[in-house]
Amino acid sequence: MESIPTKQDILAAADRIKQHIHRTPVMTSRSINDLLGTRIFFKCENLQKAGAFKFRGATNAILSLPDKMARWGVATHSSGNHAAALSLAAKIRGIPAFIVMPRTAPRIKIKAVQSYGGKITFCEPNQAARESTLERIVRETGATFIHPYNNYTIIAAQATAALELLEDVADLDMVIIPVGGGGLLSGTALTAHYFTNRVKVIAAEPEGADDAYRSIKAGEIQPSVNPKTICDGLLTSLGSRTFPIIRKYVSAIHTASDPDIIHAMRMIWERMKIIVEPSSSVPLAIIINNKLKVAGKKIGVILTGGNVDVERLPWNVDEKNSDKVTEQQSDKETTQRPI
Amino acid sequence: MESIPTKQDILAAADRIKQHIHRTPVMTSRSINDLLGTRIFFKCENLQKAGAFKFRGATNAILSLPDKMARWGVATHSSGNHAAALSLAAKIRGIPAFIVMPRTAPRIKIKAVQSYGGKITFCEPNQAARESTLERIVRETGATFIHPYNNYTIIAAQATAALELLEDVADLDMVIIPVGGGGLLSGTALTAHYFTNRVKVIAAEPEGADDAYRSIKAGEIQPSVNPKTICDGLLTSLGSRTFPIIRKYVSAIHTASDPDIIHAMRMIWERMKIIVEPSSSVPLAIIINNKLKVAGKKIGVILTGGNVDVERLPWNVDEKNSDKVTEQQSDKETTQRPI
Repeated sequence: MESIPTKQDILAAADRIKQHIHRTPVMTSRSINDLLGTRIFFKCENLQKAGAFKFRGATNAILSLPDKMARWGVATHSSGNHAAALSLAAKIRGIPAFIVMPRTAPRIKIKAVQSYGGKITFCEPNQAARESTLERIVRETGATFIHPYNNYTIIAAQATAALELLEDVADLDMVIIPVGGGGLLSGTALTAHYFTNRVKVIAAEPEGADDAYRSIKAGEIQPSVNPKTICDGLLTSLGSRTFPIIRKYVSAIHTASDPDIIHAMRMIWERMKIIVEPSSSVPLAIIINNKLKVAGKKIGVILTGGNVDVERLPWNVDEKNSDKVTEQQSDKETTQRPI
Repeated sequence: MESIPTKQDILAAADRIKQHIHRTPVMTSRSINDLLGTRIFFKCENLQKAGAFKFRGATNAILSLPDKMARWGVATHSSGNHAAALSLAAKIRGIPAFIVMPRTAPRIKIKAVQSYGGKITFCEPNQAARESTLERIVRETGATFIHPYNNYTIIAAQATAALELLEDVADLDMVIIPVGGGGLLSGTALTAHYFTNRVKVIAAEPEGADDAYRSIKAGEIQPSVNPKTICDGLLTSLGSRTFPIIRKYVSAIHTASDPDIIHAMRMIWERMKIIVEPSSSVPLAIIINNKLKVAGKKIGVILTGGNVDVERLPWNVDEKNSDKVTEQQSDKETTQRPI
């Protein structure tokens, strides 16, 4: 796809991936609503296959490849949900997925990719090594590089999560979406633009990785420099294809601190009995901290993923362990250049 | 209700509680199915209000009370999910719920009851103190005692979880249900008997609290003596109203060890991204351990509850802590006499 997805592109993506994805439920919690004086509708993409909305984009990208390209497989560099999603989606089409991962990636992420049949090549934990390793893999295998977000076919598919939410819940006032590279945010913004005339789209970002916040204020993409946050899914910079859509169609962006994000995450676990990762919890953190006028409003939130190491929960981590977390994360990405 | 619930009683209960409960989703996991070579349909009562199927029974019991009794409120002794469910259900009708809890009850259970407006009276952690304190409360307040399971109005409502599961999934071969006091098991057995002609009902019990297993083998109720298991919802003995139904309509009963239950629990958390308590995980533990012929079968499992202290997960508990768990649990109930 060579230009910004149209309404028809989003509907076509929804149709293409329909039989392969879970139609995830929309959940509500009376106790959270009573506590916050609002009505929140949680679209549970943490219950999506491979544990995150990323499976929508990966499936659409893989099913959209012409046969003569698809046969050589797909490739990406990622230590996160996109890698697992791409591996599982490749399995559907019976083609290989080549995944470049930093050798320091958490064991649980490596296991996830392996369990879906992804072929892993390890590299040094820096951006240059990732890119050069990926280039070599693509050259050697003929696989097609599928970028996790800076790709219109991906964006069109991420847009389908909000489309389902709008089908299930009438008269939403706003939708709040976490932002990392901006794939889900830009897709959601397009869906709100094409299919509604009143739903505002709000971005939610960790304070410690506030490059989207700075980019929107500056009017041009600012890199994610040395991000420090527990939200391992939101470390990346915006892309050349996501930023213009975000700039045009997103109404506002707010940030939340890691302690507030962990508090929100725990609230979702304890009151809704579902597992969400820290990145999913930023929108609720923003609501809890009164960054928005929400009284009496109907609010949509997409719970983006549920891939968490249940042996290392943020509220159980002692000081020694929490050092480890930071180290691991800063290994992963020190400066993320915009694309 | 003075006799074993009829088909009409179950349908009436479903109708009575319908607008107050969540219609919980039925979830499947392709990875769990592939791993075990079967098809499991999980009815997610962990996502029910108050975090457990118990809310069905509590709501039915409270809505069934005549006005002249209801006005004085309801009472029970419980440190578990029934106490929280009864407190929340009482709120619906605007009546008080008096809860007798052992003073050693986990803080998280106390908090849950309080958050739903239940009025707690603490007592010594033994059965005699519980019963005498409850008797005093009932005498002083005029509240109606609602037993957690040995009550036909409760049983008729617990039967509605399986009724919804049967509506959502055609052609199940069997349903596997954890057994403590037998409220859910007897209700499910009645539903299978009245509404299907092929679904077998199988009971699942922790090895360390195998009184239902022994009762079925002996043909009469055996008490739960000094139960030792992580499944804090399954410590109680069968009741005079649940056992005859179970004896007549349940096809088989199997037990699982605590390590196997914890393994199954973790599989549900990691692969399905939902929070279930240990008691919910016994049926899957039994399937994993090949206690049943499941190849190619369609199996229903009711995930009974999701009330877990997320700071004390079994796979994170060190030896010192796991001593504490045992101590707390054996405080709760040393011998549970049948009712």
